Amino acid sequence: MDENKRPENMARITTREQAEAFIAEQIEALRKQVGSRKVLLALSGGVDSSVVAALLIRAIGQQLVCVHVNHGLMRKGESEQVVAVFRDQLKANLIYIDATDRFLDKLAGVSDPEAKRKVIGGEFIRVFEEEARKLKDIDFLAQGTIYPDIIESDKGVKAHHNVGGLPDDLHFELVEPVKLLFKDEVRVVGAALGLPASMVNRQPFPGPGLGVRCTGAITRDRLAALREADAILREEFDRAGLAGKVWQYFTVVPDYRSTGVRGGGRVFDWPVIIRAVNTVDAMSATVPELDWALLKKITQRILDEVPGVCRVLYDLSPKGPATIEWE
Amino acid sequence: MDENKRPENMARITTREQAEAFIAEQIEALRKQVGSRKVLLALSGGVDSSVVAALLIRAIGQQLVCVHVNHGLMRKGESEQVVAVFRDQLKANLIYIDATDRFLDKLAGVSDPEAKRKVIGGEFIRVFEEEARKLKDIDFLAQGTIYPDIIESDKGVKAHHNVGGLPDDLHFELVEPVKLLFKDEVRVVGAALGLPASMVNRQPFPGPGLGVRCTGAITRDRLAALREADAILREEFDRAGLAGKVWQYFTVVPDYRSTGVRGGGRVFDWPVIIRAVNTVDAMSATVPELDWALLKKITQRILDEVPGVCRVLYDLSPKGPATIEWE
Repeated sequence: MDENKRPENMARITTREQAEAFIAEQIEALRKQVGSRKVLLALSGGVDSSVVAALLIRAIGQQLVCVHVNHGLMRKGESEQVVAVFRDQLKANLIYIDATDRFLDKLAGVSDPEAKRKVIGGEFIRVFEEEARKLKDIDFLAQGTIYPDIIESDKGVKAHHNVGGLPDDLHFELVEPVKLLFKDEVRVVGAALGLPASMVNRQPFPGPGLGVRCTGAITRDRLAALREADAILREEFDRAGLAGKVWQYFTVVPDYRSTGVRGGGRVFDWPVIIRAVNTVDAMSATVPELDWALLKKITQRILDEVPGVCRVLYDLSPKGPATIEWE
Repeated sequence: MDENKRPENMARITTREQAEAFIAEQIEALRKQVGSRKVLLALSGGVDSSVVAALLIRAIGQQLVCVHVNHGLMRKGESEQVVAVFRDQLKANLIYIDATDRFLDKLAGVSDPEAKRKVIGGEFIRVFEEEARKLKDIDFLAQGTIYPDIIESDKGVKAHHNVGGLPDDLHFELVEPVKLLFKDEVRVVGAALGLPASMVNRQPFPGPGLGVRCTGAITRDRLAALREADAILREEFDRAGLAGKVWQYFTVVPDYRSTGVRGGGRVFDWPVIIRAVNTVDAMSATVPELDWALLKKITQRILDEVPGVCRVLYDLSPKGPATIEWE
């Protein structure tokens, strides 16, 4: 039997009871696999790695070592939430690394989208590797692989291993407790594990984080503007009851300026672009018809609260020919 | 009496009868001022210079020489309309100069907004001056000065003479038949003179034309995309009955690209920005809440019909802190 093949008779996990049964089963399997040895996990704060962390904390407690690398491209409050939930509430063995300066220094002046992704991905592996080498007696590497990742890898579309670029001498046995689950099942399991709704229902977020939404060469001031604008957008969508109704929504701050007026003087500032999309399969996407009152409220808050911004735009483009992200 | 001061008892021209009376009065005054001599006019296609041209054609016929300089930054069909209306219909003495290459060559690589404006304004004067020197026995220069221009000049805000940079040896006496009129009165007079509604009700259009809406360094391909997108926007606003209801609407194509997908492949194309504003005094402006069906139709047409474009955005920004134009 192929252990990477979801059994045809496996029921879709939709209820709390099914989730509890899955959790109990996995706890037993994890204890059997790991014994008294140690497991390392790169905890990004995304749904998948968070659920794997919570499962492992239940199964093996302090034998799990979580490493959270803050690459400086997280959304507002995300790294803080990882610490609050895993270190403070779940008492996890969590190593928090603020690598903001390291990433942003490496990214300075890099404007090509592919080059940016390579810098971020490569640096992530180096930071994680350095931490892994400091730790003793780690035999396992836990990963938040889910079933769509396996299906896509089989198709050769893309390699989905979160930290798949580690050097050969760092040889770990893999622990992938949710690898046969679909995303919606992972969320049900996460809720049953007691993770906060804001973490369990988190929107898809690209690995390079805000890095691909601070388009062109990233600067600290523009990244700060992006983070604030994005937080305002998420807060107002939440208040309007759109969280979970609109599939994905975020802001983009391009490396481009236009004229404005403030305090009687001329300014030359950035625009903030609001991107919101609905999709069934992420292959195509449509743009929701938002309430004008909401759009105007978000616009005014961004213009009032975010330094360096003089315009707000709504991206009307379906996918295709546009992509969901801007780079 | 100050001839640049509107008499306090002068009634606002709002009716056809008032317009006819004004026209008759001006025809007499113009014939008296000009006699059998010749008048030169830079005919941009804007409301003011078009109304002055039509007035002068009525008054002095072939003694008026109109020069239309197409700087390559006109909207789609505008120069063609100038020729159709003034040469073909009104039988004006019209010199049409296609200076597209001359302007675009000078503008190549010029990205600073102020530098662009200077190139366009300076080149316009040089082209016009060259034509003026070829003509013999011209004593007068007609200009579409209107009353707000005079008020603003008095305040020292800006010099509004259309071709105010001509060299001293080209000394003309000025002919300014609508200098005491407000814009709405000029439109009423234009309609009474038989000018087409699309010309008389033309939206305000900056002197540098599409040049300030093809932001950054102008290229021919991006300028072509801008012109097509702008024509689609105007056509759909007209069809939706918004012409005359929304104060100003146009498109901007910035010198910036984002990713898209076409025919299974990756593209890196421009966004088209839809800018629409309502204003009472142009000092502040609000953004109209357009029908989503209209926005989506315009978006789809632009994405389908305009090469090099993969996104369409709606500018939600009020003035201030945004300006109406992008540079």
